[in-house]
Amino acid sequence: MALSDKLKPAARVSGQRQDVWSIVNEAAAASPKQPIINMGQGFFGYNPPKFILDAAKSALDRVECNQYSPTKGRPRLKKAIADAYSPFWGRQIDPETEVTITTGANEGMLSAFMAFIEPGDEVILFEPFFDQYISNIEMPGGKIVYVPMQPPSTGATKTSTAGDWTIDFDELEKAITPKTKMIVLNTPHNPVGKVYSKEELQKIGDLCVKYEIIILSDEVYDRLYYVPFTRIGTLSPEIARLTITVGSAGKNFYATGWRVGWLLGPAELIKYVSAAHTRICYSSVSPLQEACAIGFEQADKEGFWDESIKEMRGKMERFNEVWHELGMPYSDPEGGYFVLVNMKKVKLPEDYPFPPHVASRPRDFKLAWFLIQEVGVAAIPPTEFYTDKNAHFAEDYIRFAVCKEDSVLEEAKERLRGLKKYMQD
Amino acid sequence: MALSDKLKPAARVSGQRQDVWSIVNEAAAASPKQPIINMGQGFFGYNPPKFILDAAKSALDRVECNQYSPTKGRPRLKKAIADAYSPFWGRQIDPETEVTITTGANEGMLSAFMAFIEPGDEVILFEPFFDQYISNIEMPGGKIVYVPMQPPSTGATKTSTAGDWTIDFDELEKAITPKTKMIVLNTPHNPVGKVYSKEELQKIGDLCVKYEIIILSDEVYDRLYYVPFTRIGTLSPEIARLTITVGSAGKNFYATGWRVGWLLGPAELIKYVSAAHTRICYSSVSPLQEACAIGFEQADKEGFWDESIKEMRGKMERFNEVWHELGMPYSDPEGGYFVLVNMKKVKLPEDYPFPPHVASRPRDFKLAWFLIQEVGVAAIPPTEFYTDKNAHFAEDYIRFAVCKEDSVLEEAKERLRGLKKYMQD
Repeated sequence: MALSDKLKPAARVSGQRQDVWSIVNEAAAASPKQPIINMGQGFFGYNPPKFILDAAKSALDRVECNQYSPTKGRPRLKKAIADAYSPFWGRQIDPETEVTITTGANEGMLSAFMAFIEPGDEVILFEPFFDQYISNIEMPGGKIVYVPMQPPSTGATKTSTAGDWTIDFDELEKAITPKTKMIVLNTPHNPVGKVYSKEELQKIGDLCVKYEIIILSDEVYDRLYYVPFTRIGTLSPEIARLTITVGSAGKNFYATGWRVGWLLGPAELIKYVSAAHTRICYSSVSPLQEACAIGFEQADKEGFWDESIKEMRGKMERFNEVWHELGMPYSDPEGGYFVLVNMKKVKLPEDYPFPPHVASRPRDFKLAWFLIQEVGVAAIPPTEFYTDKNAHFAEDYIRFAVCKEDSVLEEAKERLRGLKKYMQD
Repeated sequence: MALSDKLKPAARVSGQRQDVWSIVNEAAAASPKQPIINMGQGFFGYNPPKFILDAAKSALDRVECNQYSPTKGRPRLKKAIADAYSPFWGRQIDPETEVTITTGANEGMLSAFMAFIEPGDEVILFEPFFDQYISNIEMPGGKIVYVPMQPPSTGATKTSTAGDWTIDFDELEKAITPKTKMIVLNTPHNPVGKVYSKEELQKIGDLCVKYEIIILSDEVYDRLYYVPFTRIGTLSPEIARLTITVGSAGKNFYATGWRVGWLLGPAELIKYVSAAHTRICYSSVSPLQEACAIGFEQADKEGFWDESIKEMRGKMERFNEVWHELGMPYSDPEGGYFVLVNMKKVKLPEDYPFPPHVASRPRDFKLAWFLIQEVGVAAIPPTEFYTDKNAHFAEDYIRFAVCKEDSVLEEAKERLRGLKKYMQD
């Protein structure tokens, strides 16, 4: 039944292009290679550590942990986060005014855009971007100005560090206008795996100070870095004054379904983020906030952060062995749990029956479809995270999430070896 | 530090009037009568039933229950809700297309407004309203048109049913314009305690069919009714086609901090609500969705719904005894867990030192402040839920939440007996 004109939906939800997640999920469901090895979406294939699960179970027995939390978050969690992050900032962060809890980092970022963006304000995004940013910026009426990250020129022929993806700083400065209100950073970066260097962050920060631009720094993979990691908010008081840092307990503690995120920054910015969050979700999930508080309180003592890096780095190395075997180049991640593999060498059969909604998209969508159908491994085509204009930068890449059990990674490798017969020299 | 013009927040979050919750909480913290008995906010003073807590703990042990759920909600929860509600609708509700899970009912309602409201579209609200509606309608640019509910003319002198609060249906029809896109209903009603009669709902539904208006029916107290309860979406196929029903597992299962809500309605409307929800929160909390699924599956067998009504009705009667003792009239609730008490008979001392932010508000804010300071019981002034123009309807009322332990209710009654000396005949 079609809706009458009177009942028609708002433009913000009536877009028709199918998103990458449903394309990949449908392809996976329709593939002959069941069960599919799913390395698409970045959810963990294993549980949070026991000390955090135990904390969640205990919280469920406490009356106050099952009822509304304060809209800005549970005091214990705000304090635990302030204490955990104070050492990086070199001063005590005020848990009451400089930290606010949100319903996952996603709703946290929406809250930041809702707090500062009026219709027509501009937000600078680097491509590739996490796809939710787009609707989150457009909901309050923001206009997005894109600046592409450039892959290394040798990306199709040899493996090099994800740090080789670069920004043209002249292009960035030219993208700034009097309407530029915010810039979104993401480090460690999804899907590139780049950890922005201190020098790069300083240049971005200097531009933001020069033009008075709020920096929204999405650092949800902040506990997974394999090179030195710098937080832009810690570079100088001038930059800190403009910086809102976004974190995710779901990513930190292997619990993407818990929906506990936070934002940290100067009180004068955070108070408006809190106000927006209150209007969007009112408050966030109480018993899991309590569990995350205990997570932050005990993580160091449990050796969890070190273990987390060691474990994920091990998974990354274990999985990427297969690309060395195949002679397929990839961007070696400096952080996070995604790896971008360059599949220019994979020759897709010319008459392969791609469905129209895949055939009409760039080559990476066809690669992803082909992998699902012929190899039985699901991964994500990264041009979804580009505008059409700049999609060509990533059309030979495919993104794999390695936050899976080792046995799953081994099975994926075994299947991916099947690509050998489609490779050209 | 003040923000520069360049950094200033969006108008949607920069409003300055202090909200009722922070006024009441600050007053409570500053009162000499510690500890305050808090009958203000509608959170439960006791835990969810054991079978649901056990389900939550079990879910925490399952990998897939700690990771992202599908954006529209976990299939098990959607099915459990569809099955639990199908009998009311007299047909099988399709869990895949007619139910969508949200991060509490609050974000569910925001999702509905984001799905259908374009700037300038009008939404009709009855006063008093739940305060979050306002910002949720204004965020997508909606204009609110208010229609007041009228208290019974004898409200200041005698107790009568909350059903005596009425709508002027001529006034309602006059409020409809070609821009009217949605109307918000709330039954059982917060704060009035009214359960709309079938006849009233039929009149509202007929108007919405006549003018093609989407009905957003907030039924979060749907398991707590003390008179026959009708769901507007069940009245006829013509009305069902326009109706989105809002539910809350937090309210149903005594867990306001769990943030699990849902919307139920025709597939053609629900799909846009889901799309908006995906852009706002992405997905909702996984382990607690699973627990709520088990809650709905087992509630009938556990006798939970009947017990829930019996228990809350008992609390309502227990608490309201004190008004009979004092000779103070109230609106006897037909549903929910709030009671509105008319305190016209309380004489506030003329020289009482109300702080300016309370002195400047209607009499009910002064009553609430006075109760906190002199009696040690916190309750909510309902003119917060009115526009200034219509606030006079409720300026003698105070809202108490009775969803507290019986011992708390008894202590509150003991304190409220202290009002005797301030009462005039």
